[in-house]
Amino acid sequence: METTLNKSKKADLVISPTQLINHWQGHRSLTRRVIEAFPEDAFFNHTIGGMRPFSEMVMELLGIASPGIQEIATGKTSPLNEHFEHGNKKEQLLELWDKSTDEINRYWAQIKPDQFQNTIKLFGQYEGTVQSSIFYFIDNEIHHRGQGYVYLRSLGIEPPAFYER
Amino acid sequence: METTLNKSKKADLVISPTQLINHWQGHRSLTRRVIEAFPEDAFFNHTIGGMRPFSEMVMELLGIASPGIQEIATGKTSPLNEHFEHGNKKEQLLELWDKSTDEINRYWAQIKPDQFQNTIKLFGQYEGTVQSSIFYFIDNEIHHRGQGYVYLRSLGIEPPAFYER
Repeated sequence: METTLNKSKKADLVISPTQLINHWQGHRSLTRRVIEAFPEDAFFNHTIGGMRPFSEMVMELLGIASPGIQEIATGKTSPLNEHFEHGNKKEQLLELWDKSTDEINRYWAQIKPDQFQNTIKLFGQYEGTVQSSIFYFIDNEIHHRGQGYVYLRSLGIEPPAFYER
Repeated sequence: METTLNKSKKADLVISPTQLINHWQGHRSLTRRVIEAFPEDAFFNHTIGGMRPFSEMVMELLGIASPGIQEIATGKTSPLNEHFEHGNKKEQLLELWDKSTDEINRYWAQIKPDQFQNTIKLFGQYEGTVQSSIFYFIDNEIHHRGQGYVYLRSLGIEPPAFYER
């Protein structure tokens, strides 16, 4: 029976909760370096094709990541907020980024392994499973960071390598 | 013991193999619509900041996705190829895209559930686990597609919604 149990455990293990948080924090570390690569003025003002400056995309990511994981961990919902005090200082958003990194790790530890397939209504409006919500957080970050890469290239700045986390 | 077994199964189920392939094919469906949104000339020629035209990024994705999954499923390695005959016709790359979609589904069905944590050396050079490789395929596609969104916006074209798969 022990063999069956181990086999069954491994059979379902596409990615473990610990591997998933490490995967995400690896991406978040890269996004942090992309923020750092922006000149301060361009971070808040540079745009292409009527899109938002990268600072606004970053505030969207800040509004989703830590609050989203807190909601998954605690069950307490709150409305989505994508605006943060920054005074046009990159440093202020980087501080919020690092604070989020710690909060995500802390709340992640409270998520039970059997929660990932549960359905939730995130920020009171987005229905999905816990896993599909978390992958949305990650995918949405990769999507906007890819846009940040084009902004940097258009400014003549080489972005950090995509595969370095 | 049956209870322990079921509990253990669910405990590891962050995302099942079937959920993962559906997640990826959802992304691939969106990428296909982004390709379709490009005017043919811009698809092959429009660039920003010295980056590649979107067609070349798409050929990178074509070179990775189906060959990568074939290698995972069969164990047979081959060198990475990112160039395909297209004659500057979007239709030719869209046909390859659809062919890849079918191939990925066919080879995915041959991947054993206990393979995801195995280590592999993809295309004879990229070491990782099966799961980390597959997430790299997906993340890399999201990354470049995000760049395609900026190209489209810079051309005055509204891209398909990111959350529609």
